[in-house]
Amino acid sequence: MPNQYAYLGPAGTFSEAALRTLLPEAPVGTMVPCIGVDAVFTAVREGRVDGGVVPLENSVEGGVTATIAELINGAPVMITAEVAVPVEFTLFAREGVALADIKRVATHPHALAQCRDWLAANLPDAETYSVSSTAAAAQAVAEPGSQYDAAVSARIGGERYGLHAVAEGVGDHSAAATRFIYVERPGPPPAPTGADRTSFVAFISDDHPGALIELLNQFAMRGVNLTRLESRPTGGGLGKYCFCIDAEGHVEEARVGEALMGMRRIGTEVRFLGSYPRADGDTSPTPLRPPRRTSNDDFHEAERWLTRIRSGDVS
Amino acid sequence: MPNQYAYLGPAGTFSEAALRTLLPEAPVGTMVPCIGVDAVFTAVREGRVDGGVVPLENSVEGGVTATIAELINGAPVMITAEVAVPVEFTLFAREGVALADIKRVATHPHALAQCRDWLAANLPDAETYSVSSTAAAAQAVAEPGSQYDAAVSARIGGERYGLHAVAEGVGDHSAAATRFIYVERPGPPPAPTGADRTSFVAFISDDHPGALIELLNQFAMRGVNLTRLESRPTGGGLGKYCFCIDAEGHVEEARVGEALMGMRRIGTEVRFLGSYPRADGDTSPTPLRPPRRTSNDDFHEAERWLTRIRSGDVS
Amino acid sequence: MPNQYAYLGPAGTFSEAALRTLLPEAPVGTMVPCIGVDAVFTAVREGRVDGGVVPLENSVEGGVTATIAELINGAPVMITAEVAVPVEFTLFAREGVALADIKRVATHPHALAQCRDWLAANLPDAETYSVSSTAAAAQAVAEPGSQYDAAVSARIGGERYGLHAVAEGVGDHSAAATRFIYVERPGPPPAPTGADRTSFVAFISDDHPGALIELLNQFAMRGVNLTRLESRPTGGGLGKYCFCIDAEGHVEEARVGEALMGMRRIGTEVRFLGSYPRADGDTSPTPLRPPRRTSNDDFHEAERWLTRIRSGDVS
Amino acid sequence: MPNQYAYLGPAGTFSEAALRTLLPEAPVGTMVPCIGVDAVFTAVREGRVDGGVVPLENSVEGGVTATIAELINGAPVMITAEVAVPVEFTLFAREGVALADIKRVATHPHALAQCRDWLAANLPDAETYSVSSTAAAAQAVAEPGSQYDAAVSARIGGERYGLHAVAEGVGDHSAAATRFIYVERPGPPPAPTGADRTSFVAFISDDHPGALIELLNQFAMRGVNLTRLESRPTGGGLGKYCFCIDAEGHVEEARVGEALMGMRRIGTEVRFLGSYPRADGDTSPTPLRPPRRTSNDDFHEAERWLTRIRSGDVS
Repeated sequence: MPNQYAYLGPAGTFSEAALRTLLPEAPVGTMVPCIGVDAVFTAVREGRVDGGVVPLENSVEGGVTATIAELINGAPVMITAEVAVPVEFTLFAREGVALADIKRVATHPHALAQCRDWLAANLPDAETYSVSSTAAAAQAVAEPGSQYDAAVSARIGGERYGLHAVAEGVGDHSAAATRFIYVERPGPPPAPTGADRTSFVAFISDDHPGALIELLNQFAMRGVNLTRLESRPTGGGLGKYCFCIDAEGHVEEARVGEALMGMRRIGTEVRFLGSYPRADGDTSPTPLRPPRRTSNDDFHEAERWLTRIRSGDVS
Repeated sequence: MPNQYAYLGPAGTFSEAALRTLLPEAPVGTMVPCIGVDAVFTAVREGRVDGGVVPLENSVEGGVTATIAELINGAPVMITAEVAVPVEFTLFAREGVALADIKRVATHPHALAQCRDWLAANLPDAETYSVSSTAAAAQAVAEPGSQYDAAVSARIGGERYGLHAVAEGVGDHSAAATRFIYVERPGPPPAPTGADRTSFVAFISDDHPGALIELLNQFAMRGVNLTRLESRPTGGGLGKYCFCIDAEGHVEEARVGEALMGMRRIGTEVRFLGSYPRADGDTSPTPLRPPRRTSNDDFHEAERWLTRIRSGDVS
Repeated sequence: MPNQYAYLGPAGTFSEAALRTLLPEAPVGTMVPCIGVDAVFTAVREGRVDGGVVPLENSVEGGVTATIAELINGAPVMITAEVAVPVEFTLFAREGVALADIKRVATHPHALAQCRDWLAANLPDAETYSVSSTAAAAQAVAEPGSQYDAAVSARIGGERYGLHAVAEGVGDHSAAATRFIYVERPGPPPAPTGADRTSFVAFISDDHPGALIELLNQFAMRGVNLTRLESRPTGGGLGKYCFCIDAEGHVEEARVGEALMGMRRIGTEVRFLGSYPRADGDTSPTPLRPPRRTSNDDFHEAERWLTRIRSGDVS
Repeated sequence: MPNQYAYLGPAGTFSEAALRTLLPEAPVGTMVPCIGVDAVFTAVREGRVDGGVVPLENSVEGGVTATIAELINGAPVMITAEVAVPVEFTLFAREGVALADIKRVATHPHALAQCRDWLAANLPDAETYSVSSTAAAAQAVAEPGSQYDAAVSARIGGERYGLHAVAEGVGDHSAAATRFIYVERPGPPPAPTGADRTSFVAFISDDHPGALIELLNQFAMRGVNLTRLESRPTGGGLGKYCFCIDAEGHVEEARVGEALMGMRRIGTEVRFLGSYPRADGDTSPTPLRPPRRTSNDDFHEAERWLTRIRSGDVS
């Protein structure tokens, strides 16, 4: 039986585009759309697919609540890959429909929010309608006798339903992007590549002023940069938060391993979410201040030195 | 002309309940529902109302993206009050409809997510329908010949549309609450009460490891606890964040004023959002470690000491 | 050939008392007085003795410059034991001499400084004379036809030269004590006892504000208390210092080992001086704030956890 | 009556050289040698002189215990100036005595320690004798029928007693220097010059790990570099220390004032010792990491900003 991969559907979403980017060789027939982020996680957990793609954060809207809730509270999964997809919106219509003909536009509310300025400038008299996804909008426009004239969707969405592009780049934020993650059932993380990211959730039990500082210090002192820090409610009432954190580096690296151990020892409950290659492949060293030695070699050299002085060799 | 107050409508939402809690004396006719968080902010900014109520964060879902976006990016407003409203969901139907009769339930998607377990246990065969707000669900159920049998909404919503409560407390998180803020056009903050909160947004320009630690240290070192820290994208691409922060205390207090000045001096751009009484009225001292003196009197005593030693009086 | 032990002489000093406390079983004949701290170190380094005792710090005068200079700049030795000797000064004279007869008192300048008040009150008309050690003072008083009537010295000094005690406890600081160390040629440190101390010298090459903080953080973050921090000039000019540091714990302990490695990685040059049992045998846990886990078991539990999550076991 | 100035005598010491450097216009007759550091402090406190010069620290030997003890425990005085004097030792003899003739050399023990290598190489057969100061050595050599052939002393010492220089630069550390301070009765400090130093003693009552870090943070966070940190026993037993600290800047500067106030608020007892011009006149900015704004203008700009936001002006 061939491998199967889930994504946040329906077909034609940015999630499908993300999955194709991650697995360019996989046959289309192995990609399974699931309606709802929770459905993707369930398919992964139950073993019906090998893995699944869901959005984690958007550069305009922020973290995706449903995905983060599954990572924090659901049965454990592990992130093994990520991909950043530019959020490029296209206005699609049926063949023969021109911009001037468009009176009714369908799309997802988030897409609507991100295209508001373009629509106001170019289709000031059109009415807008919210549907459950940008792909669903494209699908609805493609139906014979559709109540909508056009859809704002991802390129993949319009193409899938045989529409033609009336206008491209209709989003207001040209640099907008969404970061997708690929999750699998727990297992050893992929091997370090030299440009990796490590994700985890930290639950701080002690809320004295400075508890978060202490946690952050565990990383700063070992020269590990944090690339995302997002607080989320724990569900235990207003004012109770945990932190979803992405750090540079791989759990197999000494600096990351030691920081995780230190965090655990100061009483922080940690849920490890995985180490995986960075989508941006950024290996440029962060300008640490003050300069400090953070490579595996540096950690191992320090270990050898400790072994020497423990044996009385202080030459 | 009487004062006017906006809230996130339609009538019957938790926002209306929050506004009534804040202004129990205000006539109902002075409360103006606005469709959309942005519409509330616009009404405030344009001076059509004295102030407006919007949700800021929910203990289950986290920060309200639309509100936070307005606070970060929109024209400045100032938070002058807050109120925490328990999120208690009630199942409402028309008079004469019993639980066993209910086949079609309407509500807002967030409410649906928070009542999923109850509905699965008590109405396993009912279909659910998403509408734009819990109040809109109640309104739709109240219409003659409605396609829905019941609505999940706030108590205020069902009552406003003349429905009767079939079941109370149908939410899965009994401690769930939403924190609402009251915003006005900028002006001097309300006087300190001794149990206040100060809100601001911090933009860290220097992303070396430790920049956030330095910011947090400005507060920890002066004994100011942070009660919320939420990262939000700045819109400048993945990996670019700012931090929405709530701190204990009032901007008129020396410890808060000095921490804000310190944050500014280390190069953090700050948008001040206001100082206002805490909804919980919590004045119990945070157990600081190590004990340190943080009252206005402590700061003023230190100033007097500095003046003395500057004058050569070291007795 | 029997073991031999050096101490800071001449015979009858507090150093001899310290050595006898450390090695109560050693025959007196194996204890070799050396004139000068440097002579003790030389005897140890050249292998003429097994080890030697020198004063490290005094609770009134502070660090002993000559000892610290040898530890910092001389050929490496290792501290393997310590002992704290109460500095109790006694006024000694020849048999038959009473307090009223005493006109000329000899002692070491440091002893003189520490007995000034007693002498002013009890021997206001006596002249005082500085000699090279308190033992030398006792020896000089014992000589026939001595120019001195009395000596202020340690008990061991007066007894060794056959003097009788005219007055005891003539020091002004009743709690005064001197801490002596026993140094040997480098070798594996004595096994951990559970109440140990670790000594080292730290050379900070980077003098930005905060370099010392970073060093101290390496210990504080791992729950290792520092019991002494003394800056000393490096000899490279005014404003150039290194730090002589004593820390709780043993280099074989994970918390100490990791802190030492961390210090090395941030670019601090470290000279390890040894781990040895604390003279006070204090095993009471320091009240750490916030509570954190610092035992070897805690470090090993954290290592096992890291191994598990590295293998994908996040159950 | 003319002004009078004390210094650590006898005449011809480095202290006299320091006083002449500080007050080049003062007639020699106004400079009063006092035997002992404590005598200088007493003369100042009792008003018999306007001020006095004592050594504070030496780049080879470290802090001068007697001076530091007076600053910590004696009646308050204030440092109003400092000067660094190069420690250049000269070998002096009576006219007509050549190097080859010298068999007996007198000097102070500290000078002996710092010239050991030169004497071993150039006068291997000479005997050395310790006297109470380098000036006393020169004086003794100058006496008719002196038992000594030569003295190691400061240039000023040999010249004062009419000796001739047999060899110059006989010290082993060519960069050696001693830092002298000028103390007066307490009063307003001299006006800021832009290149100042502030001295104080800090008594940390709370000895948890991290108490010193907190103290240091008060300075680091405001961009104030510390140029000296020296622990001294408080006299309360082994393991009880206070810290003698020199910081960049003047107590009139906002950054220094705020750091001192912060230190006081965290429970540190502080004895202020004065603000005065730096001997090195070093105004080059310390390379702060990260860059931060620390000038008075920066502090005042931050104050104006705080005043604005407190009044509701967030434009």
